[in-house]
Amino acid sequence: MAGAEPTTTGPSAAGPSAAGPTAADIASLRAALNGHLLVEAGDMAPFLVDYRRRWTGRAIGVAEPRSVAEVQAAVRWCALHGVPVVPQGGNTGLSGGSVPDASGRALLLSLRRLDRVRNVDPSSQTLTVDAGVTLQRAQEVAEEAGLLLPLSLAAEGSCTIGGNLATNAGGTQVLRFGNARDLCLGLEVVTADGELWDGLRSLRKDNTGYDLRDLYIGSEGTLGIITAAVLKLSPRPRAKLAALVAVPTPAAALSLLGLAQAQLGSMLTAFELVSDTCLTLVLRHVPGTRAPLEPRPPWMLLVEISSSSDEEAAQAALEALLGEALEREYCSDAVVSGSGAQFEAFWSLREHISDAQASEGATIKHDISMPVSAVPGFIETMGTELARDYPSLQQVVFGHLGDGNLHYNLSPPADGSLDKPAFLALEPVLNRRVHDAVAARRGSISAEHGLGVLRSAEAARYKSPVERALLRSVKEALDPRGLLNPGKMFASPEDSNP
Amino acid sequence: MAGAEPTTTGPSAAGPSAAGPTAADIASLRAALNGHLLVEAGDMAPFLVDYRRRWTGRAIGVAEPRSVAEVQAAVRWCALHGVPVVPQGGNTGLSGGSVPDASGRALLLSLRRLDRVRNVDPSSQTLTVDAGVTLQRAQEVAEEAGLLLPLSLAAEGSCTIGGNLATNAGGTQVLRFGNARDLCLGLEVVTADGELWDGLRSLRKDNTGYDLRDLYIGSEGTLGIITAAVLKLSPRPRAKLAALVAVPTPAAALSLLGLAQAQLGSMLTAFELVSDTCLTLVLRHVPGTRAPLEPRPPWMLLVEISSSSDEEAAQAALEALLGEALEREYCSDAVVSGSGAQFEAFWSLREHISDAQASEGATIKHDISMPVSAVPGFIETMGTELARDYPSLQQVVFGHLGDGNLHYNLSPPADGSLDKPAFLALEPVLNRRVHDAVAARRGSISAEHGLGVLRSAEAARYKSPVERALLRSVKEALDPRGLLNPGKMFASPEDSNP
Repeated sequence: MAGAEPTTTGPSAAGPSAAGPTAADIASLRAALNGHLLVEAGDMAPFLVDYRRRWTGRAIGVAEPRSVAEVQAAVRWCALHGVPVVPQGGNTGLSGGSVPDASGRALLLSLRRLDRVRNVDPSSQTLTVDAGVTLQRAQEVAEEAGLLLPLSLAAEGSCTIGGNLATNAGGTQVLRFGNARDLCLGLEVVTADGELWDGLRSLRKDNTGYDLRDLYIGSEGTLGIITAAVLKLSPRPRAKLAALVAVPTPAAALSLLGLAQAQLGSMLTAFELVSDTCLTLVLRHVPGTRAPLEPRPPWMLLVEISSSSDEEAAQAALEALLGEALEREYCSDAVVSGSGAQFEAFWSLREHISDAQASEGATIKHDISMPVSAVPGFIETMGTELARDYPSLQQVVFGHLGDGNLHYNLSPPADGSLDKPAFLALEPVLNRRVHDAVAARRGSISAEHGLGVLRSAEAARYKSPVERALLRSVKEALDPRGLLNPGKMFASPEDSNP
Repeated sequence: MAGAEPTTTGPSAAGPSAAGPTAADIASLRAALNGHLLVEAGDMAPFLVDYRRRWTGRAIGVAEPRSVAEVQAAVRWCALHGVPVVPQGGNTGLSGGSVPDASGRALLLSLRRLDRVRNVDPSSQTLTVDAGVTLQRAQEVAEEAGLLLPLSLAAEGSCTIGGNLATNAGGTQVLRFGNARDLCLGLEVVTADGELWDGLRSLRKDNTGYDLRDLYIGSEGTLGIITAAVLKLSPRPRAKLAALVAVPTPAAALSLLGLAQAQLGSMLTAFELVSDTCLTLVLRHVPGTRAPLEPRPPWMLLVEISSSSDEEAAQAALEALLGEALEREYCSDAVVSGSGAQFEAFWSLREHISDAQASEGATIKHDISMPVSAVPGFIETMGTELARDYPSLQQVVFGHLGDGNLHYNLSPPADGSLDKPAFLALEPVLNRRVHDAVAARRGSISAEHGLGVLRSAEAARYKSPVERALLRSVKEALDPRGLLNPGKMFASPEDSNP
C-alpha cells in the first residue's frame, strides 16, 4: 500500500522539505488567496486524514479559495514553486485519493468554499454549480426547479459535485441514469499551469474537438482542478415503488433482471442484489429492522420502478412482472411497498448494509464490476472457493446487479475467532484472489470508488503495458511536471501485494 | 476551406512525393496486408472522394485489411516510412474527414472488410462488432437478439460502427438514448505506432484510469484507429406512436417540450421541429407526400413516444399530452399516427427534408447546437435578420429541438433568381453570421457532423487559446509524429473565411 505514515505533525512544526517554500513564499501564497489559507496543525488536521481514517498525510497548508481566480492563483503559485497540489472536495472518498502523502511538500486545495449555485435553466434541464456545492444541495436546487438530479450516494450530505465528477461517482441509480459522467454536460477546469479552461457548455450535442470533459471526469484531480460543472437534470417521476423479492440464486436474479428490462424498459430504476448474510448483519445491528420475507431466502432483490404517469400504472406493471416471475420460478415470494414509509423502509435495509458490516469490526472490501451475464458464475465460484478455504469468514455480498457491480466484502467470523490483525493480514491475498477472478472475466477492480492510493498498484497489475503507456502519455501531456495529486492513480504493478 | 484540389489522378500515374515509399516499400506493404491493397487509380477512386463529392484526394494506395493484425501491420508500415494514414469507414461523413488531401502521400485505410460480428450477449445487453460492420447490420443483429441498438441515421445502410464512433454520430434518437458515445462501452484501437489497445470491455462501471474510450470517440481517426467496439443495447419498445403537431412559434414548441418531458419522462423518444418551408420542399419534390395538417402551420413538431408496456397506454399518454397542450395553446392542431404505415409516413416527411432541399440546387448547411432554451430566440433573431438582408433566400430550418440541435440550412431563391456560383459565394459570410450568433449563445458549430476539413478552421476561431493548446497537447501525446489523419480537426483560426 502506498499510504502515508500516520502523523499529526503539521508543517508549522516540522516545516516542508529543505527545498520547499520559504516563509516569504507562504506569505505570497496567503496574499494570492486573499488570506484563505490554513497552516496551523489543528486547523489542517481534518483535511489531512481520509474518510476511512486509513491514510493521514501532511501539507504546507490548506488553501480554501472562495473564487475561481483564487484557485488559479494557488495553482500558479504551486507551479512557480514546484509544490504538489492535492485537490479535495467533501473528503468522503474511499480510496485515499483526496489526502496528501506524508512528505509534507504538498498544498491541500479544498474546494468546499467554492460553493455558488451559478444557474438553473428549467427549459434546458440544466444546473450549473461551483465544484464545492454538495450533492445534496444540488439535488435540492434541482427539486426546487421541479426537476431531478439523478445521482444518489450515501455521502450525499457532504460529498461535493467536484469530487463526484473527479471520481465519476456511481450510486444506486446508475442502471437508469448512468454514472456521474453521464450527468455532466460541461466543466470548468483550472489546468496544471493555472490557466482556466472554460468548457462550461450546456450542449446535448457538440462534436468540435476531443472530449476533454470526459478526460477530466474520473481523473481524480491528476489532470486539472474542476471548479464548476453543468449538470443534466431529468423530469421528476410521479410515482416510485419498490419490491423486495426472494430469489433462490443469483442466476435466477439475472433471469428476473432480463424479464424486468423487457417488461419495464426505462421504468426500471434500480435492481439491487442482497445476500441473506447482509440482511442478517442489518437485522443484528440496526434497531427497528425486521426480515421482510419469511422464510428467509438465500438472496433478495430490491427492485425499484419509477413512472412518469400515475402510481396505478406503475403498480400494475410491477405486479405483472412479479406474477410472471413467480410463474417462471425466478422468484419464490415478493412484497411490494404499499406506502412512502414502506418504500423508505425497503431502501433502508439496503442502505444500512455498510454500517452494519462496520459494526462487525474490520472489513475487507472489493468494489468490482464485470459483464452482467458473468455475475452469477462469479458469485457461485468465488463463494464456494472462499467458503472452502476460509470457512469462518462472513461473505457480505451485495450490489447493483443491473450494472454488474458487486460489493464483494468480507467480515471476520461472527464468533470472534479471528482477531482484527489476523483478519486484516488476509487482505492482500484475498484481494489478489478476488481481483484475479474479476480480471479473468474482463471485469474492473474499481467499479465506482476510483483508484486513489488504495488500488493504483493493483490496477497497474491488471492493465496491459500498452494501456499503461497511453495513460502515462495523457498524464504527461496535461500535467508535464507531475504536480497534480501525485502518487494517485499511477503506481508500479510491482507495488501490488502480495 | 482546407479541401484538396479536385483530381482523378492516382499515385500509379503521378507517384507519391519524392521522399515517399519506393516500389519495394509498396511491395512490403502489400505483403504485410496479405495482398489486400489497391493501387490502381480506378480501384482507388471511390475511396478518394467524399460523400458530398466536395473533396477529392490522392493516396499511395488503399489498404483493405481483413484482420486487426493487418490493420496493425499497415499502421506499423506507415510509421516506419513516415506515411500518413487516413482511416475510412462507410465514407458517408459530411465534413470531409474520411478522404486524404491532394498530396498523394497518404495511405487510405478502409475498415470496411473488417466486418465480423464478434459477440452478442443478451443478458448483458451488449453487442461486440468489428469497426467495419454497418450500422444497419448491427441494428439487425440486435433485433435478432430481441434487443434494440438505438442509433439511427440516414446513412445507416452504408455507414460503419467504426465511423459512427470516430465521429460520435447523432441522429434522431439522441433525446432518449444519447449520441454514439453514450452507446459504447468499450473499444479496441490500433495506436499511432501500431500497438493494439484492448479496451473492449462490457462494463457499465469502471473507474480504473482515464477515459481513453471517450477520448478516441469523436477523434475522427486522428488519435488511433478503432477496430472494434462493444455497444450497449436496450429493450425493444412494445409500442411506438408519433404525432404531428401544429405550433405557432418555436417558443410554443419549447413550452410543449417541457410539458412532454414532465408528462412522458423517458417515454418521449423524439421531438423534431420542422418549419413550413421544409414541408413545402418535401411536398414539391417527394412524390406521394401530402400536407398532414390544414391549415398549414408555420411550424410543425414530430413527437415520438415509445412504451415498454402496451400501445393503449402509449396512446392515452400521448393524447393526454396533446389535450393539455391544446388547452394551454402551445399548439393549435395535432394528428396521431393510427397505424404502422402512418407512423412511417410521418417520419418520411421529416427524413426527406435533406433530399428535397438537394433538389432545389446548391445548399448551405449549418449543423448547430445550443442550450435548448436558447433555440427559439436564435430562430427568431437570425430568421428576421437573414430575411431582411437576404430576402430571396429560402430558410430551411429543422432539427432535433429536444437536443438543441438545428439544421439551419439555406437554399437559393425558389424563383431561380440567383445562380449557383452567386449563391455559393455567400457561404463564407453566411457561415460567419450564423456561427457568430451560435457562439454568442455558447453553442456548437458542429453538433453531430464533426470537424473534418469543413469546420476545423472555424472551430479554431471559436475556441479559446487554452482549449486549443489542450487539444494540441492530447494530439501530440497520442500521435507525436502527426501521421494519423493529418489536416483533419486541427487548423489555424486565420484559415477560417471570410
